[in-house]
Amino acid sequence: MIVEILTTGTELLLGQIVNTNAPYLAQQLNKLGFDVLYQTTIGDNRERMSSVLIQALSRADLVITSGGLGPTQGDITKEVSAQVFNRKLVLHEPSKAKIKCFFAERHAAMPESNLRQAMIPEGAVILNNERGTAPGVIIENNGKTLINLPGPPHELEFMFEQYVAPYLKGKYGVQGAIVSRVLRTYGLGESMLEEKIKDLILAQKNPTIALLARKGEVVIRLTARGETELEANQLIAELAETITPRISEYLFGIDDDNMEFVVGQNLLSNKLSLALAESCTGGLVSSRLTDIPGSSSYLQGSVVCYSNDVKVQDIGVANEILLQHGAVSEQTAIAMAAGIRRKFSTDIGVGVTGIAGPGGATADKPVGLVYIAIDGPAGPKCYKNHFEGQRTEIKFRSSQEALDTIRRYVRDLTLLGG
Amino acid sequence: MIVEILTTGTELLLGQIVNTNAPYLAQQLNKLGFDVLYQTTIGDNRERMSSVLIQALSRADLVITSGGLGPTQGDITKEVSAQVFNRKLVLHEPSKAKIKCFFAERHAAMPESNLRQAMIPEGAVILNNERGTAPGVIIENNGKTLINLPGPPHELEFMFEQYVAPYLKGKYGVQGAIVSRVLRTYGLGESMLEEKIKDLILAQKNPTIALLARKGEVVIRLTARGETELEANQLIAELAETITPRISEYLFGIDDDNMEFVVGQNLLSNKLSLALAESCTGGLVSSRLTDIPGSSSYLQGSVVCYSNDVKVQDIGVANEILLQHGAVSEQTAIAMAAGIRRKFSTDIGVGVTGIAGPGGATADKPVGLVYIAIDGPAGPKCYKNHFEGQRTEIKFRSSQEALDTIRRYVRDLTLLGG
Repeated sequence: MIVEILTTGTELLLGQIVNTNAPYLAQQLNKLGFDVLYQTTIGDNRERMSSVLIQALSRADLVITSGGLGPTQGDITKEVSAQVFNRKLVLHEPSKAKIKCFFAERHAAMPESNLRQAMIPEGAVILNNERGTAPGVIIENNGKTLINLPGPPHELEFMFEQYVAPYLKGKYGVQGAIVSRVLRTYGLGESMLEEKIKDLILAQKNPTIALLARKGEVVIRLTARGETELEANQLIAELAETITPRISEYLFGIDDDNMEFVVGQNLLSNKLSLALAESCTGGLVSSRLTDIPGSSSYLQGSVVCYSNDVKVQDIGVANEILLQHGAVSEQTAIAMAAGIRRKFSTDIGVGVTGIAGPGGATADKPVGLVYIAIDGPAGPKCYKNHFEGQRTEIKFRSSQEALDTIRRYVRDLTLLGG
Repeated sequence: MIVEILTTGTELLLGQIVNTNAPYLAQQLNKLGFDVLYQTTIGDNRERMSSVLIQALSRADLVITSGGLGPTQGDITKEVSAQVFNRKLVLHEPSKAKIKCFFAERHAAMPESNLRQAMIPEGAVILNNERGTAPGVIIENNGKTLINLPGPPHELEFMFEQYVAPYLKGKYGVQGAIVSRVLRTYGLGESMLEEKIKDLILAQKNPTIALLARKGEVVIRLTARGETELEANQLIAELAETITPRISEYLFGIDDDNMEFVVGQNLLSNKLSLALAESCTGGLVSSRLTDIPGSSSYLQGSVVCYSNDVKVQDIGVANEILLQHGAVSEQTAIAMAAGIRRKFSTDIGVGVTGIAGPGGATADKPVGLVYIAIDGPAGPKCYKNHFEGQRTEIKFRSSQEALDTIRRYVRDLTLLGG
């Protein structure tokens, strides 16, 4: 059962937006046991969309498109799909009624163009759009299936989960399962991490093993095929059990456990509270921590102390320290960590101070120099870091290192039985 | 001159990462006047990569690949490319020396596998990788050109700018230019925005006009072709002049001017300082503002006041207000804005309090309810908002609305001559 994902939209070809529908669909289809072997992006051009669609239907059994179902003149996916399958477009009254109602509820005039969304290829299965106005469609012909989904990710994702996944399970039955497990590591480069599991990589069959450097981490992806999801998961568990001891120093999470989630879990299970004084990261560490539901249990508060005045008056960093060592220094970082911990009466305080760039460097303090300090039951510790990249990259890398610093500090506390 | 972009990597097909190389390459190629008509993603499978590469070379004149040049066993792009062009892989001594040196500098042992990166298709042009170890290659044959670039975005982007762009200009000369201008709007839905320029959309030839709903905004993309970039830009300027008055209420920026940049510019040019008290956004608004270099000129500091204690003790919100109205209320938001403004002695103070979800809702305060208050020379204002989506979506939408609130407040100040 071969699948091709066809993401449509000239904005994709022009590089105006990043394609998130393709990775989403790929992950969901894999869970159902479908092999996504091709992903193609095409623009809002009838001839090329038609030719790419025909090609997709020749090399895949199931083709899923995203985009081009909206009300504007550039939305041509259903028209092209209908033409490729030699079907007329007919008006779907319930969709028309729903669209009119959408506008009426918002006390807004409905532009007539919106009714284009209610035109459906004759004989198609209609997928209700709970999050928007454009319905999706499924066209089946001669063993080939084409599914048109809306472009906006939240609309597509809800429609897939509610209607497409059950449809595929019902129509194709259980395909076996392809399951991926991602081991997420931080602190060691890609090729050196590979060295630790080289023998396993060379011997791989099922599961397969692949390394991938991503933003702020290096992941090891284990992918297994099985008759059932259970079987595939068991194959993965066995291999993971072999790999984990070799990389335990660097392994921080599995699958969707990002660093902020893992740190939150550690703080929560150890009943530790946290406060942060952020200078160069400007609120990013706090924002990442608060992406996790329930973070109010451990994050008491933070201060973004961008100016020296705020460092002195609000965090309690001694003016002498700033005068003698500068805002970007080990001493200031430690004073920030101790100060914010005292201020919010938390178990742990973290201070981050550095030069995010592009300006701000001096002769002995380059862009990317970032001190991360942490204070808590095991006393203060400070780490000097050199990060590379643009301003937002340095901010992110600093935030990842700060979170990992908290993770390791809490881990060491628990090892000490503290 | 037709271009196909071929992004390689099973991690892309599995949906493990989001494809940023494709949009980057597309934008850069457009600037040089090349039409990117196809984008394909393929995994680390020799047969399929070979077949997709052959197809790309048949329908495009220039094919650019990303990924698969690294040291691991899954990196097969050069091997497949060489085989498609019937060339041997030969060792490039300078690349080998550079790779050895890279490890020596870091006092790390070099895994032998790294030398795979120094194998080059015979006769290929070699592109130095200033940001990593894997060189890129250009293979030319019979009017077709294939360029292999490394996968990591910062490596690919630097190599493209330094070597590929000059190479393409030199080899193909001036292709004419395709220029896109993006008008960024906030505050009006996609179809209602389209209504305002419907006549222009129906009449479009060159430039073309397309609307696109993106995260936190709706953009109008104008794309023009011209003999030169100057000519294309002139066509766009004329059309933009017609469109702008119709949407001026909602237009906040052009091209890369994101909301945080625009707000920063407005604060800077009016010499206004800002402080924020963030509850449900958890530092995101501050972090976005500090993504902009030079933001320390206007952002004095922020407090992430997650708990009520911090709201009272650090921001100065009266306990009675919290008891009577709750943390998520107009009164608390206004007190937060006034309090943080007073605390950091800034011209403007902003308070954001709401329910990011998924928990925390009550009978009369649902998830997504967010109050945004702003205090400054024109006095306090508060806005009640209802945002939809997951926790991180509500946080982002709140941050976008907060930034737009600052933008409008400052704009109105200057209109008043304040």
